[in-house]
Amino acid sequence: MTTLLPALDLAQLDALDARDPLAHKRAEFDLPGDIIYLDGNSLGALPRRVPARLSQVATEEWGHHLIRSWTRNAEAAQDWMALPDRVAAKLAPLLGAGAHEVAVGDSTSVNTFKALAAALRLSGRRVILSDADNFPTDLYVAQGLARLLGDVEVRTAPGDEMTQHFTDDVGVVLLTEVDYRTGRRLDMRAITAAAHARGIVTVWDLAHSAGAFAVDLGGAGADFAIGCGYKFLNGGPGAPAFLYVAERHLDRAEVVLSGWMGHADPFEMARAYAPAPGARRFVVGTPQVLSLSALDAALDVFGDVDLGALREKSLSLTDTFIRLMEPLAEQYPLELVTPLAHAERGSQVSYRHPHAQQVMAQLIECGIVGDFRTPDILRFGFTPLYLSHGDVGRAVAGIAAVLDELEGPA
Amino acid sequence: MTTLLPALDLAQLDALDARDPLAHKRAEFDLPGDIIYLDGNSLGALPRRVPARLSQVATEEWGHHLIRSWTRNAEAAQDWMALPDRVAAKLAPLLGAGAHEVAVGDSTSVNTFKALAAALRLSGRRVILSDADNFPTDLYVAQGLARLLGDVEVRTAPGDEMTQHFTDDVGVVLLTEVDYRTGRRLDMRAITAAAHARGIVTVWDLAHSAGAFAVDLGGAGADFAIGCGYKFLNGGPGAPAFLYVAERHLDRAEVVLSGWMGHADPFEMARAYAPAPGARRFVVGTPQVLSLSALDAALDVFGDVDLGALREKSLSLTDTFIRLMEPLAEQYPLELVTPLAHAERGSQVSYRHPHAQQVMAQLIECGIVGDFRTPDILRFGFTPLYLSHGDVGRAVAGIAAVLDELEGPA
Repeated sequence: MTTLLPALDLAQLDALDARDPLAHKRAEFDLPGDIIYLDGNSLGALPRRVPARLSQVATEEWGHHLIRSWTRNAEAAQDWMALPDRVAAKLAPLLGAGAHEVAVGDSTSVNTFKALAAALRLSGRRVILSDADNFPTDLYVAQGLARLLGDVEVRTAPGDEMTQHFTDDVGVVLLTEVDYRTGRRLDMRAITAAAHARGIVTVWDLAHSAGAFAVDLGGAGADFAIGCGYKFLNGGPGAPAFLYVAERHLDRAEVVLSGWMGHADPFEMARAYAPAPGARRFVVGTPQVLSLSALDAALDVFGDVDLGALREKSLSLTDTFIRLMEPLAEQYPLELVTPLAHAERGSQVSYRHPHAQQVMAQLIECGIVGDFRTPDILRFGFTPLYLSHGDVGRAVAGIAAVLDELEGPA
Repeated sequence: MTTLLPALDLAQLDALDARDPLAHKRAEFDLPGDIIYLDGNSLGALPRRVPARLSQVATEEWGHHLIRSWTRNAEAAQDWMALPDRVAAKLAPLLGAGAHEVAVGDSTSVNTFKALAAALRLSGRRVILSDADNFPTDLYVAQGLARLLGDVEVRTAPGDEMTQHFTDDVGVVLLTEVDYRTGRRLDMRAITAAAHARGIVTVWDLAHSAGAFAVDLGGAGADFAIGCGYKFLNGGPGAPAFLYVAERHLDRAEVVLSGWMGHADPFEMARAYAPAPGARRFVVGTPQVLSLSALDAALDVFGDVDLGALREKSLSLTDTFIRLMEPLAEQYPLELVTPLAHAERGSQVSYRHPHAQQVMAQLIECGIVGDFRTPDILRFGFTPLYLSHGDVGRAVAGIAAVLDELEGPA
């Protein structure tokens, strides 16, 4: 075992944790004691306030007040009808958005469809451009829309030369800000500006951004965005997703999935669709209230969180991880694929390893829970709300032990 | 007060309840004691097993096992990945469907979009025909699809002359089996046959059918169907909805909302979409596990229910209600709009009343919870799993008292 952490490092990690302004947030999560959870970018941990909220919604709002809960306490904005709007209002500050620019509900995939269809209409063009390595569902949804419309092309290009493919026939560019495999973060502002210079409408996937650091959709001039509620937002498995549409597009942004909950007056039961003002029109059918309530409660965790401190801690955790992993990367066939530059990093760190699937299976067995991503990626997510530098140190020690065991000491 | 129930009636009602083979099911629901709930066709009551299941999913599956729950216990089919399929398998017998013909997830509106798009492609035609009085979201979704495609017409016709409008240019007919206002049930088999004779593909909305009586999609030869989980299926507010596609169409039924959870191998992370076999392809994004688990638990209520007995009791409840309301309908401006013929009735009874909104508000105030539906409909839903004939009698007595108070005794 050549790779145990020096005692010096452990003391340094403790010192970093001692001055962590977010250290108190960990107590707001119900984390199992026997693992180090580096997979909050796949499924965020359970906020302690969620089970009580779920119980209250089920037994009181549903069980006792029943149908009346849809409109009950509307004057205090406690009605289910306004629940999507309440959640949107909590989410908006994390996105650099106005509450009226955000719609909450459905899955990320379904929201991607809505955003792509609306963006394509705005553009007046027939090409959707995306990263060939984008998260598959983004590509699948674009492919589905293209199949439906018949005359739309889905074009892909390598992520690192994306802007070179911003040609005048491209209508929409669909990009994920933080790559799900490499953790590389794109420059949303610069790419959006380059897109606009060519008349291209942007759709940003914030799956690995929202809740990990302050997103600034308004500042970046983004047109549309979508993202998921169950990663860094900790909204629970398959939590409702969100859709952003910039205020300047609200007049013309058409919702093709037009349902009654996005109607200007749902209970008027009019025969013709009339969109609600603001992003609310992108709410389609009846929201899944139980899941949405869990997300609502989960977002309260962010109520007192300084987003600057969140980012600072995230970078400190990933910097620490990368630094502690350096000796291992020298000894074993580990290739860091996450950028070192802070501006290009999300809140995860990934390494290629020729036996990544086997290594990750063994790590999980030993209580170091990260993700394997095909074909050869070891992915480690760092949620600043509930991880400490001490966790990082223990994780690296565990990774060292597993690599030693699997491959023999260097 | 001329309208109190004669004692004779009360004894008759008690006798009917005494021989009700479903009487024991009421204890499986957590119903408030201070109301008579005639609105299970809007939001089904809370099955007692649901809160415990929600708590277990939140604290154990999410909180403790975290991301591992997606694949954990897959060999026992207890993994979240297969949860939509497990729910589909429980739902299928209520629909007269095979489990592989049913997909569970998303909202009814979103599923309507998927079904309409797939049906339209199968038909090769460009006209969607629907009932002018269909539930608005069905019309809105059709309108949205037509806006997106540009060359599709949404045509509406009066419900009672629908088959006269089955012309050779119609590609898809979108009909709700049980009308949400009148409670009139259509002859699914006859209308489907008439549609097929003209080469028209059918999409049936089962919102007010599923769980209310045995639906026989297979026997009726239906092509597609959609429906909601939160009415007679008691799956909770905004519960996941379902989509049915007949086995004979599975080879060619295209899903335009193609997401990773409907991919043949989601974790392969392939760049090109390849549909899962069976209706599973109509699952799009990550399912909202909390809401879906509630529906899963709720469907267990049907495990020992004989669907013939369910229908028999439903008709007995609505027959009893109509009969007891007869004296009121003579004294007050109440017009029964629900058909008397059993074959044409769902599990609700509706009356027109010139001040329906005011009457329903007062009824709800008095603990008789039904629905007002614009412009002048008093709607009363009868869920045979948790209502008794005694409830029906007490409800009518309450309606009589409210009408007496609002309009003066006759």
